[in-house]
Amino acid sequence: MPRYKLTIEYDGTPFCGWQLQETLPSVQGALEAAVQATCGVPTRVHGSGRTDAGVHATGQVAHCDIDKEFRPDKLRDALNAHLRPNPVAVLDAEIVPDTFEARFSARKRHYRYRIVNRRSNLALEVGRVWRVPQRLDSDAMHVAAQRLIGKHDFTTFRDTECQAKSPEKTLDQLDVVRDGDAITIITSARSYLHSQVRSMVGSLVWVGQGRWSADDLAAALAARKRAACGVVAPPEGLYLVKVDY
Amino acid sequence: MPRYKLTIEYDGTPFCGWQLQETLPSVQGALEAAVQATCGVPTRVHGSGRTDAGVHATGQVAHCDIDKEFRPDKLRDALNAHLRPNPVAVLDAEIVPDTFEARFSARKRHYRYRIVNRRSNLALEVGRVWRVPQRLDSDAMHVAAQRLIGKHDFTTFRDTECQAKSPEKTLDQLDVVRDGDAITIITSARSYLHSQVRSMVGSLVWVGQGRWSADDLAAALAARKRAACGVVAPPEGLYLVKVDY
Repeated sequence: MPRYKLTIEYDGTPFCGWQLQETLPSVQGALEAAVQATCGVPTRVHGSGRTDAGVHATGQVAHCDIDKEFRPDKLRDALNAHLRPNPVAVLDAEIVPDTFEARFSARKRHYRYRIVNRRSNLALEVGRVWRVPQRLDSDAMHVAAQRLIGKHDFTTFRDTECQAKSPEKTLDQLDVVRDGDAITIITSARSYLHSQVRSMVGSLVWVGQGRWSADDLAAALAARKRAACGVVAPPEGLYLVKVDY
Repeated sequence: MPRYKLTIEYDGTPFCGWQLQETLPSVQGALEAAVQATCGVPTRVHGSGRTDAGVHATGQVAHCDIDKEFRPDKLRDALNAHLRPNPVAVLDAEIVPDTFEARFSARKRHYRYRIVNRRSNLALEVGRVWRVPQRLDSDAMHVAAQRLIGKHDFTTFRDTECQAKSPEKTLDQLDVVRDGDAITIITSARSYLHSQVRSMVGSLVWVGQGRWSADDLAAALAARKRAACGVVAPPEGLYLVKVDY
């Protein structure tokens, strides 16, 4: 039974998140329905990880086993035809060895968080970015962000409902880049705790507003308690952009 | 009576275009309603030029005369408050001399046209780009585009309803740039004929598909008749990004 690796883009807005839920629309549910419509039998689609309600992806990865050999580009087109009108698109499909696991084979996950730093409301990017009206010092944000790099107990930046066994994670990259009014936060790590990226971004915005220094951010990390976290950034600015294997 | 210059972003999707129409929602109409709600009297808002139904702007410019001296940032915020929930945002307001005319003082208009060149449907940019499934040769498009630079009779690339007195325009820039699946066409000129950018983009896509050579594009221009035009690109990929004064 061939195993397929799928690369997926989605608009998280109408979904309860990646993960299948009984009564709510999920990205996984939309994909499993499309696979079933294509191959005729109920089929599990395994993602590289969950994304929360409202979080987007331009490069989520999933795998599934289908008891039929499709040409990968034909499978991609068939899935896309069945996915409409859901805002989910299969960008690429390929046949992979049975040892490939979207979640467990992942070596690194790349996220981007998009902020638009301006007073005026959004006309073109509603639901696609976090608009922060107060001027942010993005250089200070970038400098402070480097204090979170490396292996740490990230309890402060972890949702209270996080189910990971250990709060220890190794953060490889956390860059803050400004281009005019657009601020992008680029991060990569093998894996993250639940809400970790949004919790780090929200805390960095406090740094950008001058409410916290880099030392305050480091102290929040060292506190290892959720109450020490800054604000949690809203989901609509977050994108899972790439998973390395 | 102070004159204000407004810089405006909008999502063209729900509008019949920039220009006021009696029974349909227009960008100009939304702005005039916001100005009236702010200053209490009906006020004309003059744009740098019309954009068609569905065409977006990140840097449209307009002017209006208001019989009251506002601090420009306060005027911007008041207009934005009254513009909601329309997808129109005033990015900037400034006081300008009475001699400033959004339309007639403009020295150069900059547009961008965004193509996503891929088979898969759009999940995140529906209504924001033109998706072209067939692989386009963007280098060939760029080379051919240079044949349109300069002063020409652009009748071929002009909507039959265009009201300009002369079909002669001077095109300063028409660059085709690829970044992965994204192709951006960057153009600037003092002014354009009606549908000129979309007509040029659609014809360049024929070049990218191999249907037309650069010579065919030049021959279409030289034909000086509308029937010689390629396809007209859809409005949702087009953005008025900047007007120079």
